[in-house]
Amino acid sequence: MKMWFLGTGAGRPAKHRNVSAIALQLPEPRGWWLFDAGEATQHALLHLPLKLSRLEAIFITHLHGDHLFGLPGLLGSRSFDGGVSPLKIYGPKGLKSYVENTFAISGTHVEYEMTIIELEDGAELDAFYRDDLLQVDARPLQHRVPCFGYRVTESDKPGRLMAEKLKERGLASGPVFGKIKRGESVELPDGTIVKPEDFTDGTVPGRVIAILGDTSPCRQVEELARNADLLVHEATFAAGLEEKAHEFGHSTTTEAAKAALAAGAARLAMTHFSGRYGNEELWQLEEEAKAIFPAVFAATDGSCVDIPRRSSVRGEKPGK
Amino acid sequence: MKMWFLGTGAGRPAKHRNVSAIALQLPEPRGWWLFDAGEATQHALLHLPLKLSRLEAIFITHLHGDHLFGLPGLLGSRSFDGGVSPLKIYGPKGLKSYVENTFAISGTHVEYEMTIIELEDGAELDAFYRDDLLQVDARPLQHRVPCFGYRVTESDKPGRLMAEKLKERGLASGPVFGKIKRGESVELPDGTIVKPEDFTDGTVPGRVIAILGDTSPCRQVEELARNADLLVHEATFAAGLEEKAHEFGHSTTTEAAKAALAAGAARLAMTHFSGRYGNEELWQLEEEAKAIFPAVFAATDGSCVDIPRRSSVRGEKPGK
Repeated sequence: MKMWFLGTGAGRPAKHRNVSAIALQLPEPRGWWLFDAGEATQHALLHLPLKLSRLEAIFITHLHGDHLFGLPGLLGSRSFDGGVSPLKIYGPKGLKSYVENTFAISGTHVEYEMTIIELEDGAELDAFYRDDLLQVDARPLQHRVPCFGYRVTESDKPGRLMAEKLKERGLASGPVFGKIKRGESVELPDGTIVKPEDFTDGTVPGRVIAILGDTSPCRQVEELARNADLLVHEATFAAGLEEKAHEFGHSTTTEAAKAALAAGAARLAMTHFSGRYGNEELWQLEEEAKAIFPAVFAATDGSCVDIPRRSSVRGEKPGK
Repeated sequence: MKMWFLGTGAGRPAKHRNVSAIALQLPEPRGWWLFDAGEATQHALLHLPLKLSRLEAIFITHLHGDHLFGLPGLLGSRSFDGGVSPLKIYGPKGLKSYVENTFAISGTHVEYEMTIIELEDGAELDAFYRDDLLQVDARPLQHRVPCFGYRVTESDKPGRLMAEKLKERGLASGPVFGKIKRGESVELPDGTIVKPEDFTDGTVPGRVIAILGDTSPCRQVEELARNADLLVHEATFAAGLEEKAHEFGHSTTTEAAKAALAAGAARLAMTHFSGRYGNEELWQLEEEAKAIFPAVFAATDGSCVDIPRRSSVRGEKPGK
């Protein structure tokens, strides 16, 4: 999986940093997901290898304009762009009427099936989204308006195929190998059941990615980010500005770093920087966080990060 | 006055051409006006010498998303940007509830006085806006939804001051000269009234600028553009695609040119080009129009055109 940072700023656009949006590119042949849709999210996409027609789902963290105002235009353009597959949109209460009112007044129509699913204010939701590959949990965060953080968990998959062992068992490579590699049991002509766990090298744990909306420090951050491969945490302000940050429901760099450390996350991406910080100052924000949590980076608009699967592990994988 | 083309595309953004917005920069010490606010209008402004705090009024032609979806974000950012002076917003019915709903759901608040004035569908309005310097008329256009074109008329002003003649009359330069130059009559200590028309060289006609929304050819275009110094007319499609253009309430290049010719406009700016035309094809669109109306240009994003006052004229100025 890859993550694209489409907009990494807070509140309003600046010359080199747009308002919030993050794309999560799923493993082929899957498409991608969008987290938040600040104004001009569709403009950012024009310069990236992410087609609106392959967008599968949108998760909105909260309804502040800098996370929302790009949504109606993007939905309309998806139809223009040949998007015909169904699209699901998740977010706080109010999202449905916002989209419906905006569509009605602007005469916007889309050619695909669009479903808006509102999450109850304050709800703690496990696996409110689930498909063959992924599940998503949501937790309410600490902000001025109802705001969610999302935890995306990929299914585990069997490790490397032990081809020699299969051959010793008298099996030739071919469709049977493929089934076992995909984690399926196979019944042989003689009635024996070949179980994948006996012929694969452990389990490759699914990736876990936590993408938070705007928040001050709170218990739910740790729940969402527990052992995550990547935690995306806002860092609106520099260290030392905690009081100001909390007044507006935000966090500082050091608070983002402490959250990643406490949750046992593997990596931390900081985003949602106040317009007061130029890109030339991001290294300082990064240094502040690094002092606490070294595997951190400050995201910039248009940047992309790879999220590799961990190596296969035998026995228990790190739990939630 | 100067006109800035912030977005010159139709329907949806493309890499090098955003959706509709036009800024009209008024003579100092006045600020500027905005016509339409497609998504990412506020982003375009970040790169131009137009401060949101100096924006005085917004005129929306119609409520299609490509002319509208940048409005809420821009209004919010104006407050962030230190905008405290009142702002008036004119447009079709539905505009008020769109802004109010969007503000309510997104928790957007502004620190300035914002007044939204809706124009009745189909209304022919003379001077619905008027101040010391400018007046604006509106006419309904031929589009799929209620859509207005606007005619901005600047007040005439007295021509060059005939200083020698004033001195012959025994007047010394100073405040009296200033008043006469501004077109005011002056009463002298002896009771005589000095009229500005007797001591200035004719009249400098005010500029007339017609800015149309999306439209197929119709009578109202000519009314709005009569003797305009600059007509901004959509040209969504190339010559020959009239049928397609009219099906969607649009015009072609040659229709824009014919309208400028029929109205006796001095210059024509074409905008609102379909995404099918790259910037490298704009010269062809310009050529099509030039064959009918030579004083034409195809606007591009970020471009600016000066609109000079005409020389002073004696006697009748060209009427509407």
